[in-house]
Amino acid sequence: MRPAPDGPATAPRAPSSVSAPAATDALAAWMEDCQARFEQQAARCLPSAQTEPCRLHAAMRYAVLDGGKRIRPLLAYAAGEMARADGAALDHVALAVEYVHAYSLVHDDMPCMDNDVLRRGKPTVHVAFDEATAMLAGDALQAEAFRVLAQAPLGAAARLLLIQDLALASGTEGMCGGQALDLAALGRALDPAQLEQMHRMKTGALLRASVMMGAHAGALEPAALAALERYAGAVGLAFQIVDDILDVESSSAELGKTAGKDLAQNKPTYVSVLGMAEAKRRAQQLRETAAHALQDTALAPERLARLLQLADLIIARRH
Amino acid sequence: MRPAPDGPATAPRAPSSVSAPAATDALAAWMEDCQARFEQQAARCLPSAQTEPCRLHAAMRYAVLDGGKRIRPLLAYAAGEMARADGAALDHVALAVEYVHAYSLVHDDMPCMDNDVLRRGKPTVHVAFDEATAMLAGDALQAEAFRVLAQAPLGAAARLLLIQDLALASGTEGMCGGQALDLAALGRALDPAQLEQMHRMKTGALLRASVMMGAHAGALEPAALAALERYAGAVGLAFQIVDDILDVESSSAELGKTAGKDLAQNKPTYVSVLGMAEAKRRAQQLRETAAHALQDTALAPERLARLLQLADLIIARRH
Repeated sequence: MRPAPDGPATAPRAPSSVSAPAATDALAAWMEDCQARFEQQAARCLPSAQTEPCRLHAAMRYAVLDGGKRIRPLLAYAAGEMARADGAALDHVALAVEYVHAYSLVHDDMPCMDNDVLRRGKPTVHVAFDEATAMLAGDALQAEAFRVLAQAPLGAAARLLLIQDLALASGTEGMCGGQALDLAALGRALDPAQLEQMHRMKTGALLRASVMMGAHAGALEPAALAALERYAGAVGLAFQIVDDILDVESSSAELGKTAGKDLAQNKPTYVSVLGMAEAKRRAQQLRETAAHALQDTALAPERLARLLQLADLIIARRH
Repeated sequence: MRPAPDGPATAPRAPSSVSAPAATDALAAWMEDCQARFEQQAARCLPSAQTEPCRLHAAMRYAVLDGGKRIRPLLAYAAGEMARADGAALDHVALAVEYVHAYSLVHDDMPCMDNDVLRRGKPTVHVAFDEATAMLAGDALQAEAFRVLAQAPLGAAARLLLIQDLALASGTEGMCGGQALDLAALGRALDPAQLEQMHRMKTGALLRASVMMGAHAGALEPAALAALERYAGAVGLAFQIVDDILDVESSSAELGKTAGKDLAQNKPTYVSVLGMAEAKRRAQQLRETAAHALQDTALAPERLARLLQLADLIIARRH
């Protein structure tokens, strides 16, 4: 048995200011703290590659550690801090959402799905290991995500809510369902509403759950939670639109994954369905929706700053 | 949203007698009731194949419905009845363990694992659908298993215990870990202790969890639970030994899956490591261990009858 994760030595820094340049510095410092904290927790909580079955454990660690922007953990930490959640409980949420994200990438990259060889600037798991190990590593990461939530330092009702959030976001009504719609859409024309539905499920559901699970680990009034849900939905969808834009405008080196593959695979994207200008306009519009939703929480502006900054970052990112 | 499962119109019959021929009749009737009850609940709770994404939902239903002996649900119902658990709560346990079992078969049959085309007398999921859909159907069934436990009609603490049981039994310390050991063992010599460890994880862990989760849905004294755990471990291991024996002694038609494939794949089995006579002796020995463990629960014999009959059935089965 591995030890359950507990709090790290230092908590992430509180925002020192929300004015523009200082906010950018403070955000960067906070993000670095969160990312380092996540990395430390994941390295400690994932099963050791020196424990049998070593190859499976090595593949699970390879899939999770040393890579990625950790957008989902950042959203969970930011929403959790807004909801005054306990830091150690947020570590469990951050691990769970990133384990599910990592497992989905491992399975998605396999030859029977996207057949991709590059991810986060490294060979994909089935290339670095083998296909059978990649499939099992993904399966085991999903189980681990639910284990880590069941053992979070929270009351039983809160843990159950988190488990339900994650199960809905990752299953047939969320991520897996969206991937199935994506498969069915290959080479077919989708209208904008169908495209939005697919992306809300495929990537939006887990991003949205990352925000809501962070909040559910703390305490917010129902009206604030409802407003936060609108923020989370807008940011989740905007993330995918920007992804579609970057797939066209960026190089593989900038992305750390194969660029231009949506077009090569004849996948419908926001750019192919709406055009580049309209895709960019839609992303900006969702940024406004997210900002207004945060105001609707009726919380003090300093409690909203981090989530607002993350929405800006997600929409302005270059990779 | 689909409705959460609730109790069926009729509860499974209580055992009417434990004397030999009557017990066999009563057991057969009880098993038929449980199997019909499971089928009805699964058909109702799995997402409809008429709801998008239809192909994914159809694959999930194909993987779970109309097939299999439902050994794990039977063990859960029997242990739950022994622990006086609520029938509706046991339905959730039965669905969860069978969803995990079904997902593991779907992934295990894929070309990158065992590459099998026949399962439960039908084409495997990746043959009947396609590999990408098979992988997603397995992934979604795992998420669904945890959702169904999170929504079981039980107190929060009991639901969390069930979720933890299932996560441990299906992850790296259980089923996925055992499958990884199995992969690593292909073409290699294992000693009997290594073989036992692999099988205790690969198939034993989920069978054991089926018994313990049934019991955890009800109420038993710690001493009775500890004794039941010994029963569950013995039956879980015996199941795999009998599977290894049947793989040599039965035809594909009898098994409903490809026979003789362990030998063809040069997999170490109880028969190849211990020899046929010793494998059969070990299975009988585990049947004795299971029976003694049940006596150690110190419960009245009529409460133990069903689990004792299931142990006999698992060890005497021909397919």
